[in-house]
Amino acid sequence: MTTQLEGRLMTAAPHTQADRDRDVDPVFALHRGGKVEVISSVPLETREDLSMAYTPGVAKVCTAIAEQPSLVYDYTWKSHTVAVVTDGTAVLGLGDIGPEAALPVMEGKALLFKQFGGLDAVPICLSVTDLDELVETIVRLAPAFGGINLEDISAPRCFEVERRVQERLDIPVFHDDQHGTAIVTLAALRNAAKLTGRGLSDLRVVVSGAGAAGIAVSKMILEAGIGDLAIADSKGMVHLGREDLNDEKRMFAQISNRAKHSGSFVEALRGADVLVGLSSGTIPGEAVATMAKNSIVFAMANPEPEVHPDVAHANGACVVATGRSDFPNQINNVLAFPGVFKGAMDVRATRVTEGMKTAAAFALADVVGDDLAPECVIPSVFDERVAPAVAKAVAAAARAEGVAQL
Amino acid sequence: MTTQLEGRLMTAAPHTQADRDRDVDPVFALHRGGKVEVISSVPLETREDLSMAYTPGVAKVCTAIAEQPSLVYDYTWKSHTVAVVTDGTAVLGLGDIGPEAALPVMEGKALLFKQFGGLDAVPICLSVTDLDELVETIVRLAPAFGGINLEDISAPRCFEVERRVQERLDIPVFHDDQHGTAIVTLAALRNAAKLTGRGLSDLRVVVSGAGAAGIAVSKMILEAGIGDLAIADSKGMVHLGREDLNDEKRMFAQISNRAKHSGSFVEALRGADVLVGLSSGTIPGEAVATMAKNSIVFAMANPEPEVHPDVAHANGACVVATGRSDFPNQINNVLAFPGVFKGAMDVRATRVTEGMKTAAAFALADVVGDDLAPECVIPSVFDERVAPAVAKAVAAAARAEGVAQL
Repeated sequence: MTTQLEGRLMTAAPHTQADRDRDVDPVFALHRGGKVEVISSVPLETREDLSMAYTPGVAKVCTAIAEQPSLVYDYTWKSHTVAVVTDGTAVLGLGDIGPEAALPVMEGKALLFKQFGGLDAVPICLSVTDLDELVETIVRLAPAFGGINLEDISAPRCFEVERRVQERLDIPVFHDDQHGTAIVTLAALRNAAKLTGRGLSDLRVVVSGAGAAGIAVSKMILEAGIGDLAIADSKGMVHLGREDLNDEKRMFAQISNRAKHSGSFVEALRGADVLVGLSSGTIPGEAVATMAKNSIVFAMANPEPEVHPDVAHANGACVVATGRSDFPNQINNVLAFPGVFKGAMDVRATRVTEGMKTAAAFALADVVGDDLAPECVIPSVFDERVAPAVAKAVAAAARAEGVAQL
Repeated sequence: MTTQLEGRLMTAAPHTQADRDRDVDPVFALHRGGKVEVISSVPLETREDLSMAYTPGVAKVCTAIAEQPSLVYDYTWKSHTVAVVTDGTAVLGLGDIGPEAALPVMEGKALLFKQFGGLDAVPICLSVTDLDELVETIVRLAPAFGGINLEDISAPRCFEVERRVQERLDIPVFHDDQHGTAIVTLAALRNAAKLTGRGLSDLRVVVSGAGAAGIAVSKMILEAGIGDLAIADSKGMVHLGREDLNDEKRMFAQISNRAKHSGSFVEALRGADVLVGLSSGTIPGEAVATMAKNSIVFAMANPEPEVHPDVAHANGACVVATGRSDFPNQINNVLAFPGVFKGAMDVRATRVTEGMKTAAAFALADVVGDDLAPECVIPSVFDERVAPAVAKAVAAAARAEGVAQL
């Protein structure tokens, strides 16, 4: 029985023009019937097979786990299974489109987990948005999974969801939109600094965008020892003189922006070494031209970077990275999350610490090695060395920090 | 990267005698690392593949679903995916062993869904037992799934959980411990009656066991037009003179037991045509000998039938069925649930009606055809005709009853 095939052949909607447009679109064709499936990893051909994999044989496996709970890691798929959980409130750049419409992204994530991390990931799309209920629901569905990847949950809810779910569970919980982006950005930044003869502490960074990714990137590069950092939201630079800051932004105003930039993003950019774009705005080439010599421009808005790489280079940028696969230096979360989960789960880490994330970033940066060049500060997403290197570093950091159970 | 293999090779626990016993046990060996995995059903080798299956390509699929919600059935795995949901409160005959220890059963169920129904099933083990919270949690996680198979949830909670979850969702919800058993039992009973020259309305049935399965079987065969039925719980026959009946049992006392049996199960068995055993007790051969001529004995306790088939036959039983694979006439839910879900989901049924269940039972009975014999009142679980026949009948019944959306 080939349901997968039947699913692909079956179409339900009547044929409108939109239907016909989809019918000839290779992206829709690829998505027909979905992108992941669940298969058996044991034989099931005979009565003997059935009696071992199911009743009556399975009963003694259940009994063993009930008596010694850690055996769930040995005799079920828990040790290599991740729930990819969303509430559909911040899907890609599309906003709050709901759990069903988020499912194609979660399926995509699941296939990346398998392809790059060898992990079995399950799309979980929740029809609940109340913060307390969302936390409770995720905690309740955790027992069958070895890790929780939070995805496309709107800020600032995502910060508290992650913190509270992690407090309640002893498996790694990781909000990829925050930390995946932060890890890959730090890796690229470290290599770009090295390439231009600077250390992280020499760099003054201006971040455009104070959403989940902007906040997480800023936190991570501050902790990694960046020289100074200022962050801009839609109202301009975040500074202590503003009355409209939420807790998260106020914390940033306190610990960063030593240069006390209080005007526009473009003003703050003058003389800065690094631009990190994580918003949907555009940045004129003239503004890039006011940055320090050998400037570093990470324009990560999707699908249109805040400034085109050619324009950035023409205005003095030495290293340019984007989120796009058709330009050099693609900042893509897939360089981080498969290895982070693989490493954390290999040693049965009870959480993902800051040290594990930093170790992931530095290991990712090191993969570039002698290939380091302005057009190569970060490995290709298809570089097979990436996930094992990240996993190894994350596992070692988990052990060093005392959160590994193996 | 072959995590599956690594999972199988990795062992965590120190080597005690129990560990060594497990190491040489083929059932534990089969379970190492779990029994199911999630794989990609689309290629992911090039940047082009990645840009179609994930960002930026996936965005237009999400947008299309947000605009036209039913497209989730065309462009995700929802149309062929079932959540196998438990709270771990009534696992096999082991009782309330918790969600982690229930996982091997849910994985087993998932592989049966794939093998026999071609459906992709995901084990979901919930750490919540409060009835309201359990219902809410299942409703919230439903968006990514096309069906909900409830499993190993204790009675009487399971009745209300199923009813309330189905009321809230427009996908099929099916508690297999109730209806799977009921469908297969009715199929076997119909064939056994035919074989012994009787109609269903000629039969007087005594059921031992008033748990989820006992109640569901009793309901289903009553609705199918059985002559009379009396049900026994651990305190004896259920009748209107008893003060200790819950709502479910009181309802049965009202609509059945026309012969007004009020004593022991063994007394009620005298002259009965059919014994249905769904308890863990034992029934002496002498009691079987008091039944009507050409009696029908379904002794479905696992792993030990209430009465051994040889003993039942020696005491006058014409047809004997059990839950065991090593005796003839195995009453196994796997004959029902894959086809029921396949049929219901093929026509996008919004629920599983009584008519769909009855259609499943009769289609299952019909598969036996000319092979009908005392040792063959029900097909083999490996009979490849079963799931398609059941699915076809269920889909047709769904259309006839107006619950099909395709």
